[in-house]
Parts: sequence; structure tokens; C-alpha cells
Amino acid sequence: MLEKRTPISVGEAVCNLMKFASPGLIEMVALELAHGRYLSEDLVADQDIPSFDRSPYDGFAIRSEDAVQATKDHPVTFEVIGKIGAGSVYSGKVGPFQAVRIMTGAEIPKNCDAVIMLELTSQYEENGQTYIDIKRSLKHGANISVQGEDARKGMILAKRGTYIHPGIMALLATFGYSQVPVARKPVIGIIATGSELLDVKEPLVPGKIRNSNTYMILSQIQRAGGEAKYLGKLSDDLETCYSAVKASLNQVDMLITTGGVSVGDYDYLPAIYEKLGATVLFNKVAMRPGSVTTVAHLDHKLLFGLSGNPSACYVGFELFVRPIVRTSLFNGKPHLKKEKAILGESFLKPNPFTRFVRAKLTYDEGKLMVSPSGFDKSSAVSSLAEANALIVLQGGTRGYDKGMYVDVLLLEDHQGSEWPW
Amino acid sequence: MLEKRTPISVGEAVCNLMKFASPGLIEMVALELAHGRYLSEDLVADQDIPSFDRSPYDGFAIRSEDAVQATKDHPVTFEVIGKIGAGSVYSGKVGPFQAVRIMTGAEIPKNCDAVIMLELTSQYEENGQTYIDIKRSLKHGANISVQGEDARKGMILAKRGTYIHPGIMALLATFGYSQVPVARKPVIGIIATGSELLDVKEPLVPGKIRNSNTYMILSQIQRAGGEAKYLGKLSDDLETCYSAVKASLNQVDMLITTGGVSVGDYDYLPAIYEKLGATVLFNKVAMRPGSVTTVAHLDHKLLFGLSGNPSACYVGFELFVRPIVRTSLFNGKPHLKKEKAILGESFLKPNPFTRFVRAKLTYDEGKLMVSPSGFDKSSAVSSLAEANALIVLQGGTRGYDKGMYVDVLLLEDHQGSEWPW
Repeated sequence: MLEKRTPISVGEAVCNLMKFASPGLIEMVALELAHGRYLSEDLVADQDIPSFDRSPYDGFAIRSEDAVQATKDHPVTFEVIGKIGAGSVYSGKVGPFQAVRIMTGAEIPKNCDAVIMLELTSQYEENGQTYIDIKRSLKHGANISVQGEDARKGMILAKRGTYIHPGIMALLATFGYSQVPVARKPVIGIIATGSELLDVKEPLVPGKIRNSNTYMILSQIQRAGGEAKYLGKLSDDLETCYSAVKASLNQVDMLITTGGVSVGDYDYLPAIYEKLGATVLFNKVAMRPGSVTTVAHLDHKLLFGLSGNPSACYVGFELFVRPIVRTSLFNGKPHLKKEKAILGESFLKPNPFTRFVRAKLTYDEGKLMVSPSGFDKSSAVSSLAEANALIVLQGGTRGYDKGMYVDVLLLEDHQGSEWPW
Repeated sequence: MLEKRTPISVGEAVCNLMKFASPGLIEMVALELAHGRYLSEDLVADQDIPSFDRSPYDGFAIRSEDAVQATKDHPVTFEVIGKIGAGSVYSGKVGPFQAVRIMTGAEIPKNCDAVIMLELTSQYEENGQTYIDIKRSLKHGANISVQGEDARKGMILAKRGTYIHPGIMALLATFGYSQVPVARKPVIGIIATGSELLDVKEPLVPGKIRNSNTYMILSQIQRAGGEAKYLGKLSDDLETCYSAVKASLNQVDMLITTGGVSVGDYDYLPAIYEKLGATVLFNKVAMRPGSVTTVAHLDHKLLFGLSGNPSACYVGFELFVRPIVRTSLFNGKPHLKKEKAILGESFLKPNPFTRFVRAKLTYDEGKLMVSPSGFDKSSAVSSLAEANALIVLQGGTRGYDKGMYVDVLLLEDHQGSEWPW
């Protein structure tokens, strides 16, 4: 007896699912290991930057009032009374027509209010004393990087949930975060099901294929910011699969299975969810590929039943698992970034269901262009090689012509989108 | 006596430098660790995909000639003689008006040339024998995924130098790469110089700043695909710095120092290069920030002398170190991806030198938009927080107005550009 399933829209499926999304745990990591993680707290300036008035150049610090009369024809002479390297502080007092040699980044001595660049002075010695001539006047504050001009103490420079890239690393170091509060990576189990699956290192035999979904998802999990835990590959056997799923649940924050969600005689996931007492959120989504994608929860732990077809599995992950992972990482824009792009070639298939086409996004003279990245079937793997985006073709349409604007979802982006798409 | 340096253009500097770029070494990694690495060989199909004719659906395999007469009013009855799960092979012979139950992904039995979906049949039993009725004709080849339709044995599906993302992982698994040939990550040493530098965990004291460049570069190295080796923070002392640089050279594939490259009294890098016998490729580039960026080589090992100013250091890395790293990773497009974008706000400073402005790239209705990401001085760190691009403003211009197209370099991209920009 064939089970009848009622498809729900992608939007409805995502909304149902996101009720179970929640921020994850926090851990501290050493700054040198923070690249690629997500901040679990706002990054706050613990000081002004610069934290003192400093020199942006190599030159001489002076009192600008002494140089008021300086011109090319009538240079003003200053006595060089000291030297100050970056990191040192000049403790003396600078008087009229006195100058202090100052290096880039060094603190401006008290009494001084301007810096003249080294290249703009002429230097000479007389009786062991160094002098400089200045041939132009300087304004009060000239060539001084003023305390707080870059950032003010207390400012939030990056929100929690921000991906830690080189710029954020620079700020973390500047503000003394030798240990960085980051989101703990959610641990996501993967179980591959299907009697047709060979291990990657096994030679091909008739009727079988190598298990590619596990490694694809492992990489998708890492790209999303999670930690993958591969729990094995199982044959289509209800009891074995049930035991494996049940045993895995206390080892992971969420579980992905691949295969077994369709309506075939060996599709055991529905029976497993029932036996576990899990609540199915949806088991049919009005989308291609991946319409059989199923999500269930058991005590607020999510179980993702992705299709065994590579492209369907890929899309199911990005639409449904990724936002859960990114929310766990405190990111406020957990969904794939949605943008408009110009379709580079016609796509004339009718779309009874919303279609997500693996695609290559490129730029052309400041415009986003997108074309399918190859063979378009839910079983396809070759089209994933160049895919950096998904083209979204709305259900109920009969085709799209080259040159039209279409929605695209970006796969390699760190910014993300809020809901709704 | 102030050293006079002759600035060269960015293009000339990059060309000089790229003469020293070379592909790196190869290593094998387990497939599960290959995410984020770069292929050191072309990824070749070792089989057709699919490797056999298979069923894309759950249904029944039949001989299409038997269903020629089938209509809604005159269904044709088939005897179900067997069942075939994914991964098994049906060894029997399918005769006239016989059908075999077939699951998604299973191999089509010999003699059969079409599949009818489960949902389109009605099934019944008589005397323990299962029959199905078919109410429509099927063409030869209907609903069969034909061997090789996705990819052909021998096809190159990804070139060497390709970044390994989830789609590439799926292909590697499909083609049996349990061990993946990848580029060894070049080891890049970092030495920070400057008496003003505090360790990140030290409290601020007058005149000093925390060492942020090291952690920023460490993250830039990882983003580029290299392996960072932090070799310490040194005061401005010629002998100490010389010894540290010399000692580091046989531990790394290339060396980055920060600070000490300007013309100040404590800028020792030029003297260190001389003492090492290194050849300076350039020590002044017509660009802002980062004009003092210096590159030298010693026995074909590159020494990058980046500015101590965070923004200048950042830009110097991306323009000069990154293409060397990516070439080492076999990538044929090692430079930052260059595109056009619409300037979101006017930038009215004159640009005697080519200017690289830290910027935020966004999309707006299918167009690339770019705006400076904040405070624009070579010492700035706050503007790095949101920077995902650099705006390139050509030297010799007096300013750029909002709405103009400008060149941008993308920082977070895996594709890259070939030379020339």
C-alpha cells in the first residue's frame, strides 16, 4: 500500500524547522586557533584606537606655533632635543623651537601638536647638536593620529555570530582577546543507508555505487561551520538501521541520514522515526530535487532524512541543515544568501515544484550572471563540481529564458540571509 | 642620510615577484580530511556515471513493446516476477508482459528497456501472484538513467589547483579517491618586529600597542591555503632581528616580517636583507597603503617585508603573498579576483599612488555594489572588520564619484584571477 504524502512548500518547511533552531554552546579558543570560527559574543573595543595620540610618519614632533612663519625662503630652525622610537615615551618637555625625532606609531610628546615628515626637513649638525630646518607652516594637529580616531572604547566592532576572518583576527588581537569566546561547533552525525553503497576504496561491482554522499555532507557540514561525525554505512535493514540511529542520538547534536526516505520497499526511515517516537515535521517538500527530504525531531533533537540522490541530498542539506547549524553558531543570517542574477542560458523545463538548479555564478561587468553547472538530475554528481550557487525556479512556471533575472542562493558565502527568502 | 627609493607600479612589482612563484609539493590525505585543500592532480572519472543503466524511480522495469497498447480504458496487465533492491542485480530473464519491481538506483534488468513509476500502476494479487496494470504506453528508454549520462570514464571533472569543496568531495568519493593527492600547504613564517608591540595578553602601557598583525596574517595565510608558523615578536634591534630571520629560513618555505621596512632609524629590514645577501626585488611600490612593502629573495626563497601598519600589512599580503601561495597550490588563477562594481559613496581624495581601499562588497538587484568599510588610514584596523573586498583607485586620479564603476578585488573568493589585472 503506497503511502500518500502531502507536499508542503519550501518556505513552510523551513519555518516549521526553524522553530527548533537555537543558539549553541560557547567555548574559549586560543586566538591563533580562532580563524574560521564564529564569535559567541560581540567584539567590543576595550580601549580607544589609537589609545594615544601618535605619529603616522617618521619625522619630528614640534609645537605648531613655532613654525607659523616658516616658508621656503625663510626656514625656521629647530633644535633636536631627543629621539623617540615606537613603543617609547618621551618624558622631557619640548620648548619653543625644539623638536623631537619621532618614529611611525610613537606617542606624541606632551607640548607638541604637530609632526613634520622626515622627508620635508633638512638636518644638520653644529657642535654636536642636531638642528632641522622647516620650510612650511603646520597647522595645530597636523600629522597626528588622534586618540580614538579609528575606534572608540566601548564600540561594538563585530556582532556575535560573525565569522572570524583576518580582519576580525586583527581586532581580537588589538583588544586583547588572547582567548576568544566562540560558538562550539555543533556535532552532526552522518549515517549513510543503502545496500547499493560501496566504501570509497572498494572496487565497483555490478549494481553498486560508491558512497559519495557521506563525504559531500562531511564537507558541507564543515563549510556551514559544524563538526561532522561519520557513524557508518548501513545496508537496507530495518533493525540494523533503527539500532544505529538510536545509538547515535546521544553522541550528536543532530543526525543526518542519507537514503531510505522515499516510498520504496526498502525505505525504512519513516518506520525508524515511528519506532523511535520521533515527530515528523515534514516528509514531502514541493521542490526538485529533494522532494522526499524528511525532518523529524525527538526531544528537540533534529533528525534530517536526506535523499540518497547526491544532488537532492546536497540541496536538502543547504536548505534545511545549514540554517540550523548557523543559528547554533549565533549567526543572525543563517540561510543561504539570496540574490538576483541574470540567467546565462534558457531553462525550458516546466517546474511543477520549485526547482533548485546547481549553478555557476559569475560576474560580468558588475552584474551577477548564473548558468546551470551541468547535468540536471537529482542523481547527478558532475554538476556539483562547479556549483557555487543554486538557481531557484519557482513552482508553477513553464520555463525561464536566457537574460531573465532569477533568484540565486550563494553557497560559498559567509554573510547569509535572514528569513524570508 | 635619507635613502631615496624609486617606486614601481603594482603591476611591475607583481610581475617581478611572480618570476619566483612555483608549484609546490604533493601529499596524499585521507578523503575525510580533504575539505578545503587544493587538488594537486586533475580529478579524472575512473568509470562512467552511472556505471550501469539504472532506475531513477521506484517502480517496475518492463519491456516497452509490451505496453504499446496500454491506455486508461484498456490497461495492460503484467505479471510481477521479481523484486530488485538498489545494489542487487536481477539475474532472471524478463519475458513478454512480465515486470520486475525495481527500487531507485537499481540496475535495469536485461531485456527491460523502460521503467514505470510505482505511483502510476495499480497492483493486485491473484493466487499468490502479484500483477500490475499499466494505463499508458512507454517509450523505449523511458525513465532509465543511462550509463555515462552524467559523466564519461576518462573525463576531467576538476583541474589540478581546484579548491576542494563539497561538490568535489562527492566526485572524489564517486571515483574511489580514498586518498586524495593535494598540494602540500606551504609553510610561511611570521616574525613581527617593533619595540612598540605588546603580546595580546599584556595590558596596555603608554606608547605601546598590541601585536595584531601576526594574528591577522596568520588568518590571511590560512584563507590563502598556507600553513602559518609564528616565529616570534622582536624588538627593534638589528642583531636580534638578523639572527631570528636567518635562523628561520630553513624552517619555512617563505618568510613574512612585519614592520621595519620604512625609512625610520629603527627600520632594520633593509640592513638585514643586505647582511643575508638577499636580493631586493622592490622596496617601494606606487600604492597606498603599503608603499614601503619590500620583497627580497635568497636562493629563490621569498622574504616579504610587510608594513607594520595593519591596513598596509593586510593589503601587502593579499597583493604579493597570496599569489605565491596559490601558485604553490597549483592554482592557475592565483591573484585576487578582480571585478567591476558600482561605487556606493564618493571617494574624493586625490590618488597620487594607486589606492586600495578596504571595502564592503554587496549585491543589489543583480549588481555589485561597493563602499569603503570604514576609517581609511594605513594604520586603521576597524575598517578591516567588514572588509570583504578592496576598491582599486588608479594612481593619478583626483577622486571617484558615487555611482561610477570601479575595480574591486574580492577577498573571500576561491576562484581567483589570472594576470594581468
